[in-house]
Order: sequence, then structure tokens, then C-alpha cells
Amino acid sequence: MKVTEEIRGFKSEGISAKGVAELRGAAREARVWAVVATAAAKSGHPAGALSSMDIYMTLLGAANVTPELADSPERDRIVVSHGHTSAGFYAALAEYGFFPAHEMAANFRRAGSPYQGHVERDVPGVDWGTGNLGQGLAAGVGFALAARARGSRAHTWVVMGDGEQVKGQVAEARRIAAKEKLTNITALVDWNDIQISGRLEEVMPVNIPALWAADGWLVTECDGHDYEALYRAMKAAKGSPVPTVILCRTTMGKGVSFMENIPDYHGKPAAGEKLELALKELGSDISVFNAALAERKGPLPKGRRITPEKPVLELGVPHTYTREDKKDNRGAFGKALAEVGELNYKKEGATPMLVFDCDLAGSVKVDGFAKACPDNYVEAGIQEHTTATAAGAASAAGVVSVWADFGVFASDEVYNQQRLNDINRAGAKTVLTHTGLDVGEDGMTHQCIDYVGLFRNTFGWNVVVPADPNQTDRATRWMLAEPGNVCLAMGRSVLPVILKEDGTPFYGEGYEFRNGAIDLLRDGTDVAILAMGHLAGRAVEARELLAKEGISARVLHCATPLSMDENELFTLVGERPLLTCEDHHADTGIGAVAALAFARAGKAVRIKNLGVTRYGLSGSNGDVLADMGLDADGIAGGAKELLK
Amino acid sequence: MKVTEEIRGFKSEGISAKGVAELRGAAREARVWAVVATAAAKSGHPAGALSSMDIYMTLLGAANVTPELADSPERDRIVVSHGHTSAGFYAALAEYGFFPAHEMAANFRRAGSPYQGHVERDVPGVDWGTGNLGQGLAAGVGFALAARARGSRAHTWVVMGDGEQVKGQVAEARRIAAKEKLTNITALVDWNDIQISGRLEEVMPVNIPALWAADGWLVTECDGHDYEALYRAMKAAKGSPVPTVILCRTTMGKGVSFMENIPDYHGKPAAGEKLELALKELGSDISVFNAALAERKGPLPKGRRITPEKPVLELGVPHTYTREDKKDNRGAFGKALAEVGELNYKKEGATPMLVFDCDLAGSVKVDGFAKACPDNYVEAGIQEHTTATAAGAASAAGVVSVWADFGVFASDEVYNQQRLNDINRAGAKTVLTHTGLDVGEDGMTHQCIDYVGLFRNTFGWNVVVPADPNQTDRATRWMLAEPGNVCLAMGRSVLPVILKEDGTPFYGEGYEFRNGAIDLLRDGTDVAILAMGHLAGRAVEARELLAKEGISARVLHCATPLSMDENELFTLVGERPLLTCEDHHADTGIGAVAALAFARAGKAVRIKNLGVTRYGLSGSNGDVLADMGLDADGIAGGAKELLK
Repeated sequence: MKVTEEIRGFKSEGISAKGVAELRGAAREARVWAVVATAAAKSGHPAGALSSMDIYMTLLGAANVTPELADSPERDRIVVSHGHTSAGFYAALAEYGFFPAHEMAANFRRAGSPYQGHVERDVPGVDWGTGNLGQGLAAGVGFALAARARGSRAHTWVVMGDGEQVKGQVAEARRIAAKEKLTNITALVDWNDIQISGRLEEVMPVNIPALWAADGWLVTECDGHDYEALYRAMKAAKGSPVPTVILCRTTMGKGVSFMENIPDYHGKPAAGEKLELALKELGSDISVFNAALAERKGPLPKGRRITPEKPVLELGVPHTYTREDKKDNRGAFGKALAEVGELNYKKEGATPMLVFDCDLAGSVKVDGFAKACPDNYVEAGIQEHTTATAAGAASAAGVVSVWADFGVFASDEVYNQQRLNDINRAGAKTVLTHTGLDVGEDGMTHQCIDYVGLFRNTFGWNVVVPADPNQTDRATRWMLAEPGNVCLAMGRSVLPVILKEDGTPFYGEGYEFRNGAIDLLRDGTDVAILAMGHLAGRAVEARELLAKEGISARVLHCATPLSMDENELFTLVGERPLLTCEDHHADTGIGAVAALAFARAGKAVRIKNLGVTRYGLSGSNGDVLADMGLDADGIAGGAKELLK
Repeated sequence: MKVTEEIRGFKSEGISAKGVAELRGAAREARVWAVVATAAAKSGHPAGALSSMDIYMTLLGAANVTPELADSPERDRIVVSHGHTSAGFYAALAEYGFFPAHEMAANFRRAGSPYQGHVERDVPGVDWGTGNLGQGLAAGVGFALAARARGSRAHTWVVMGDGEQVKGQVAEARRIAAKEKLTNITALVDWNDIQISGRLEEVMPVNIPALWAADGWLVTECDGHDYEALYRAMKAAKGSPVPTVILCRTTMGKGVSFMENIPDYHGKPAAGEKLELALKELGSDISVFNAALAERKGPLPKGRRITPEKPVLELGVPHTYTREDKKDNRGAFGKALAEVGELNYKKEGATPMLVFDCDLAGSVKVDGFAKACPDNYVEAGIQEHTTATAAGAASAAGVVSVWADFGVFASDEVYNQQRLNDINRAGAKTVLTHTGLDVGEDGMTHQCIDYVGLFRNTFGWNVVVPADPNQTDRATRWMLAEPGNVCLAMGRSVLPVILKEDGTPFYGEGYEFRNGAIDLLRDGTDVAILAMGHLAGRAVEARELLAKEGISARVLHCATPLSMDENELFTLVGERPLLTCEDHHADTGIGAVAALAFARAGKAVRIKNLGVTRYGLSGSNGDVLADMGLDADGIAGGAKELLK
């Protein structure tokens, strides 16, 4: 079945009768494949797939995206926010030649196949993996911001479910789009009025048009099964001077009589006689299903494998802070960020940078970048969930995307969003300031003592916790040119520069940041102290205290707990008892990583993990750290206890 | 300074001139203390405190809450959602006699003092600790739902900032309140139009009245510094048949000329001459500050210590599933929940139960409870952030509050909300279904492989992962009567009942659930296999496979990885090599807990941790688990590798 080409790139005013007939035929065929796919998998969401089908078919016909363009940076991007309609979107992609329909239908939700239960990026034509509702619009905002930063004319289309309209993150995304006056994004809501548990009005009433309008979007409506109406609405939206949402009135299960408007088929495939009836109504028959079942026993198809790109950036010359400098790590980060930003701002060939802030620019030190690179700076307000997703998606669309925020807000508050960035193999750069107890007076709710423990649950995130302003400067530059998701974490306080025994900066001239490295800050024989982040300086102080009592401590620092080189660890610790110390939960940070490494290697080690063992107090930093036993005295005391 | 008593309980129509004068005088005094407190701490948010002051003073004068009632279940509850205005709320509480004002001002944000940087429950009069914006209204909804379930006439008041109006969670909370027709909750927004980075319109435009109205609230406005207007608006709201928000037009920094409308004083206390000027303008002088500084060097004041209450419930008779039964753990949970619900429904003396659902009742098996106890069931829609907070707050207000959801949605998506429940020492009961790879076809986004790792970052959450339907039944009943936050986690699949060697159910007659216990499922000498959750049955199967090769395996199960009894672990493992297995991230679950225990005890152990080491496939459960090496074959293979 040939699909019309007359609307590609929105070149025609409307669709000819012939074009409509071609779309209708192809959509009918795609519905067959969606029904077959879910039936063969005995799993999936057929009714939603049928509901969104005509939106998908029209959009894929008109948008600037084809199989040839599927990996082009200049393509239009399509986000399917209600990822459970995968069978429908996959079937529509197949009609447009992205992959063979029979292959998809036979291998849908089959272990090892790319055609997973919720849309994901290994399927050509899928730009963002979703499945947890409410994130798609935020991803679209990220794509649209990235396109703008790249000077691209590509448009972003976000297709959403109606049930997810109540997710708070959706509203946050709307507001950023409206504030940024994004005219390169359009949302389409599949409004069939049914979610798993029943009608929207019964499950959770929501005034969809009023909310979009209140957040500054132009709201239009159309029949979501009328190709001409859909096309004209999309074309108008693409040319609109404000972000536009098209509320598409649809019928859940459209095309299969017994599924139409029946919530039960939200998550239940057709089977047996019902399946035969469905296929008959769609002008097909059971042979297609039988063929799919047969093919399902054959070899697995291969998907593409998306990997994050390495940014192209001039990284400038690292700045070296000396013993006289009083600097906080966040200041060093902010300075390096602004320098790299300025060096590459609107420079031909450089990957554009985008920096996001959530109403804390002065505290998280992105104000320098904002000043130097105003067009690439996004003030996203106190809307962390959407910012996490938008920054992640942007990083997968050709920009270096940096989001700096207090630790609690950019990790704890948005853990699932960061996890989805991991699943999507994005290249987000998240900078956590005010981590650990190093928030002083702000108290418990602001103590981000779990970021290593959180990101350790993912498979791709790297975490970098620099020891002092010099290492922060170098880690910042390193991070900006890294592919993949990287989290750079730091506290609030001014820190002394870590020095070599000769008084020159340890992380200064000649030092290059290396992922996984363990740095030998001071040598010693009786005990090894492995510190993370700002406790490195205190560990060096503790060593002086211990020396006065005749105890010789080796002091180590590792800035990358999740990629720590275990062989270096074993070699550098040797037979010494090991004291770990971190301004982080004592059970889930570098101490746990080190202990687990020893245990798995079958090595007995005398180990003690200093860290945060209860919520900290609200008071001056020094008092709060001392109370937790994480000042130099506490560290020295821990070492002595270990040696008892 | 005496504060008027004439408006207590909203008994008067308005406020007399004398009453207004008394309120004004007390508010002036409270402003002095707020300025002194932040100045003495050299930290805090004076301008916001002054902005909200007249709202606090009026509310504390009229609401049904006094120092005597501060711990009464029948009191009105006040949630301060913008917790950084703590100095203002504390000062207002002090005016009403909750504690001495000088004590608060001298010890504000002092390490070890209850008067922390953001409001928290150890301060009498504070009903919910906040600090991460956007959660207060959800907490208020939880309190209001709890009051309704208890048949209490208490009203809930939520005071919010304007900057946090853009947080998505706020909208979710509005919708639940409107759907549930809560007439016992009122929101007050301190609308001074300034947030940290500037005016709302600059940072993130938001149409506050339109959004509240679109979500079904009655919107009223008043001058937030006019006591009479505030009082009448509150009184009208209390009597309104729909939930009402009062938008209070205020001036940031009200009462101190140089702070008024200056964003800079959002987070900066007055000092030096500015401080003297501020105090003078407020009719006081520097001596108050000097006295506070002196007192700050003295002994620390004590706060109250909130601990969660033990629910009073009939737990019924545990149900025993036999080898013939085919049951999933979630079905066993749902049956036990419904039974306990029915037994205690509207029963005199029983703690009322509230069960929350997010559009997945049939899948997470709370439909039985919904049918049996319709008035105590809340369908919250796809709004997990607000549900997590509302369910947590309800549990701190005299009900047993249960929220069941897919694992990803009730842990990953809402980690920070659950963390705040921990900080608030709530008694939330969160039930995760569809955890691990045991979501089959749903794929990566739905794989909750991190819940142990997440809750391990808190200090109070317990996690229970039952092995089979029998243990699930008993764990469910146990959990319902536990104080404190408990997470009960399970997969999706039907599981075989775990049997003793004599063929009778292991977790059947005579078994009682014990927190921390390690169960010896099968004895053996060559290797110990420690399983968590549904892998216990597969570990028993693996033992049979190993036996055929002449290897004798001891099989252990621990359902409570975060409170595992280490001595039992050491004793039961003995000198055997230890294989751990779990349908959870291999680095952050029970395997890591066990390895860390051995390492910290200085014991060398040959250990291997089987678990999830990458995102799993999308396919049938059996295929997905086998692919990850977590079926019986994989476990047996792991044991053999360990013994090599």
C-alpha cells in the first residue's frame, strides 16, 4: 500500500481525495499490524494504538521525517509521550518504510527484539523512549530548544495521551514552551476520553483546554480520525506564532467494533474469535496473524543502537587556584562553564551549549554563562521535573546541555527523569551544587546525601565529585566534552586548595582529570583514608592530627566513585586498614563501593565507612559536619578507632 | 503583647477595632523576632517571612489550634508549603504561646536546635516539614482526607508561596481536592510576586487564578496585610462548598522599608546598620538582637520528638495458600488488604484505613478494598507525586494510609516525596507491584530494579520483599499495624508456593512474619544461596539442579534487606561461599547489603551477587529473567562459578 507523498513537508494546502484514500488505506493496514502485533505478543495496548493511528499516519506523512532522515540532525522530531501506544506508532512507521511491518508485528514485545513494549530509541523513527507518562512534552521542549540553539528549522511534534494530562510535569513543560515563545513545537492530544480505569471524568476530572490556554498555548480541536482536518490543524500549528496544541477527538479502539470505547481493551489484546472478527472488520484475516506467529519463532531482528555523540568544543585553558585563593567549587564550576561558553558561543563547528536554571542562577553559578551567552540560557523556573527531561532530551539532539541546581532538586526530586535520560542514552550534564551536609543552615530537606546511591542504580550515569576548585575546573571542562550522562557534584562552601607537600596545588599545572583515577594525596603506612569530594581536604588535615600521635596515614581521593578503578584501589590500599569518608550517606556512597569491591574480590579488609548516618542538623557548615564526625577531628578519630 | 482571642474558631463575624490593633501589635512584634532570628543566624529568608506574617498571625488567631491542642488529633492542621519562611511562622507561633520568642530567635538555624532552617515537625505547631517547594498542598490534601476518614471536623490550612505555583505537583493536588469535594481544606497563597531571581513574570510566567479555577477551586483574593480582609476570606473559605484558595496580595519584606519588594532579601538577612534600621522601623532596637546573640551561646533548647503511632487494627486470620494454588503476590496482598479493610471498616476504635490508587486498581489489586470500603478509597488518577505526599501526610494524621502502584511509579518517580515522608517520620505504607524484571513485556521504563537501593538512602523506610503468596499475606497484615514508613514490594507473576521438604507451605501455619529474619528454606553444605523475594522459589529449584551434580546448597531467604539481622547472616552462611540473588540491581540490593556486612565485620567471604546488571528485555517474564541469568539455571550456574 502506497501512502500519499503530496503532503510531505506540509507543501500542499490540504489533501486531495486520492491522498485521503491512500492515507485511509495505509491506516487500515497499519491497524491490522497493530492488532496482530499485540495479539501475537499476547500483551500490549491495542485500543490506544488504534485511537492514535490516524494522528500517526497523518503526521508521518507530513512531517519532515523519512527513513532516510531518521538519523539526520535536521529531521523533524516526533515524541510519542503515551509510549504504550507503541504497536500503533511502530505500525505507522512501518507503513512509511522505516522497517518491514511483518517483522515488527511478529517480534513485538519479544525478548531480544527492538520492538519493545513501550517506544524506544533502538527503533528507527523513535526519537525518545517513553513509558512513564507525562514526560513527552518536556522531551519535546528539549528538542525544540536544541533545534533553536542549532539554528535548525526542524519542528518537534509531541503526541500525548489524555490520561497523562493530569501529570504535573506536563503543565511545567507548557509553561517553559510558552515563556520561550517556542514556535517550533506542536502538541497533539489523543483525546478519546478513556484511561485504564474508565472515563477521564470518573478517574480524575481535568479541564484540558482551559489548562493549556491558561499556560499560554493556542488551543485548537479537530476530529482525530479525519485526515484532512488533522493535516490542516498541523499545518496551521506549524505556522502559528505561539505554541499550539491540537486536541484530537478520537475513539479508543477505532476501527474494531468491539474495542471501541471499551476501557477493558486499553491493555488487553484480541484473541480467538474476537481476533478473527477484528481482522475481518479491518479487511484482513487470520492468516496474517498465523504468519506472524510463525515468524515469531524465527531469528530475532536487530534494531539500531543509539549512542551519545561526543561534543565538539574548545575547552580553553584550565585555571589554577593557589593556596591564597578562597573559592568554592561551584564558583570554579561557574567560571569554567562561562569561559567554555564564551569560547564557543555561536562559533561555527562548535556544538552549541544550552544551560538550564531553576530560579537559582546566583547560587549555582550559572549567571556568568547567562551573561556571556544569553541566547543559550534557559530560565526554567521552579520546574525541576520538566527541566530534567528537557535538558536530557536536548542533549540527545545535538547540543551540550547543562543543568545546574541544588543537589536535592536535580537528583532526588527528579530521579525517575534522570533514569529515563539513562534509558534514552542521552548526554545530559547535571551539576549538583549544595550537596551533602554542605548546605549548612538549610537543614534536612536540602541535604542531598544520596546522589551516588541514586545514580548507582542506573547503568550509564557517571558521577564526578571534585575535591577542590582546581579539580572542579578541570572536571567541568572534561565533562563538557564527554558523551553520555554525567553528574558533577559539589557542596556550597569555600574550600582550601589541596596542595602537594611542596605547597603547590595538587590539582594544578600538569594535572589532567582522569575518569576512575584514585589520587594519592599523601603517603603513609598505618592506615589508608579514601575520601570523596570536599572531605579530601579534611582528610589531609586529619593526617596531620594523626601524625602528631605517631600514626602515618596515606590519603587517597577518588572523584568518580561509580567508575573507580578497583585495581588502583587494591594496590593503593594494600594491606592497610581502610577508612572511607564522604559527605554522603555512609551506606550508599564511595565507602559502599569500596567495601563491595573488596568483598567481591574475596579480600578481607579492615574497613570503616564514615559518612552521613542520620539527617544532619541545621546550623553552620562546620558545626553540622563536626556533629556528624566528618571534620578533621572526626576523621582522625575514625582512623584511630579502626586501628584499635 | 496579648493577641486577640475574639476570632478563635471563627466565632465572630469580623474583627473588632481592638482586635485588629492587637493583631497588628503582635504581628509587629513577631516581625521583630523574625528579623532578629535571621540576623542572629546570619542566614534565612527574612523578606518572605515578613510577607507571610499577617497571614500567619490571622490564621493562628482564628484556626482551631493552640499550644494546648498542638498534639491533639482534632486540631486544625496548618501546612507551611514555602518552608523557607520558617522565621516568620515560628515567630507567629511564639506570639501565640507555642514557645518563647526569644528562645526561637536566639536559636534559629543553630546546630542542634529544633528551630531549623525550614519548618519541621519537632517545632510545636508545625504539622508537616517542608523545604522542597510544591509539596505542601499535597500534604494538606492528605490531612483533609484523613480528617474526613476519621469523621473529624478539623480543617486544614495550606499556606503557599507564589514561586512554587509553577510546580506540577501543586496542580495534581488541586485536582484531587476538587474531585474529592474536600470542603475541609483552604489554600492561602502569599502572592508578593517576587521569587529568588526576580518577578514571577520574568522568571516563569504563570496565570495563578486561571489555573486554580480550571482545576475546580473557588478563587478569592484579598489584601494579605489586612487582618479583617484575611479573616473574612478565611471564614468564607471554611464555609465554602468547594475547596477555596485565597490569593493574598502581599508585599515581600513588608514592614522593613529597605526590604520591601527587593528580591535580594529573599535569602539575605539584615546586618549592621541595616539591621538597626529594620528594628527601629519595627518599633524595636538593637538590644533585642544583642540579647539573642548572647542567648545563642547558651544551652540548646529542646524540641518535641514526633514518632509515628502504632495503628489499632484487627488483622484477621492469615490465609494459607497450598501447593495447588496458583497465586501472584499482588493477589495475596489485595486479598489480605480487603479482608483487613472489611474487618475494620467504620469500626469504633479501629484506626481508619485509607487506600490510594493511581489508575491501576485492577493491576495492583486494591479493587477488592475499594469494593469493601468504598468511602475509604481514593482514586487519585495518574498523579503520583501528589499521591505520594498525600498518602504520607495522611499517615501522620491518624489513619493507616496505603498506596499501591507499579514499582516505578511509587518509588522511582516519587523518590523525593518518599524521602520527605521519611524526614517527617510518617507512617506511609507503600506497596510496589510489578517490581524487578517481573513486568515482562512492559520493558525498561517499567523495570523497578532499584527500590531497595533507593530506600536505603533514607534512615527510616523499611522494605519488605516477600517470597511467595503466603509470606505476602502475612507481611501485609504485619505492615498494616506497623508504625513508620514501610514499603512492601512484589512482582507481577503467579508464583509457586514455597514448600517445606515435607510438601507443606513454608510460610503457612505456624509461621509469623518477623522483621529482619533470615529464613532457612533448605539446608546444604557447599554453598549458601541468599535470595530476596520471588527468586527464593527459583533458588530452591536451583538447589535441585545443583544436587543432581552433587553440590549441596543451603537456601536462605530474607524479606527485609534493610533490616537484615547480620548475626543471623553470619551464622547461617558460616564458612560457605555466598551467592546472593535478587530481581534487583546487582549493586544496590540485598547482595550489596550482605557484602557490606561481611566487609565491615572484617570477614573475608567468597561472594557473588546475581542480579540485574543492565536494563532487561521486553518479553515474557521467563525469557527476560533467563536472559539476565536469574532463572533456576542461572542461579545454579552462578553457584557453580562461585565454587570453581
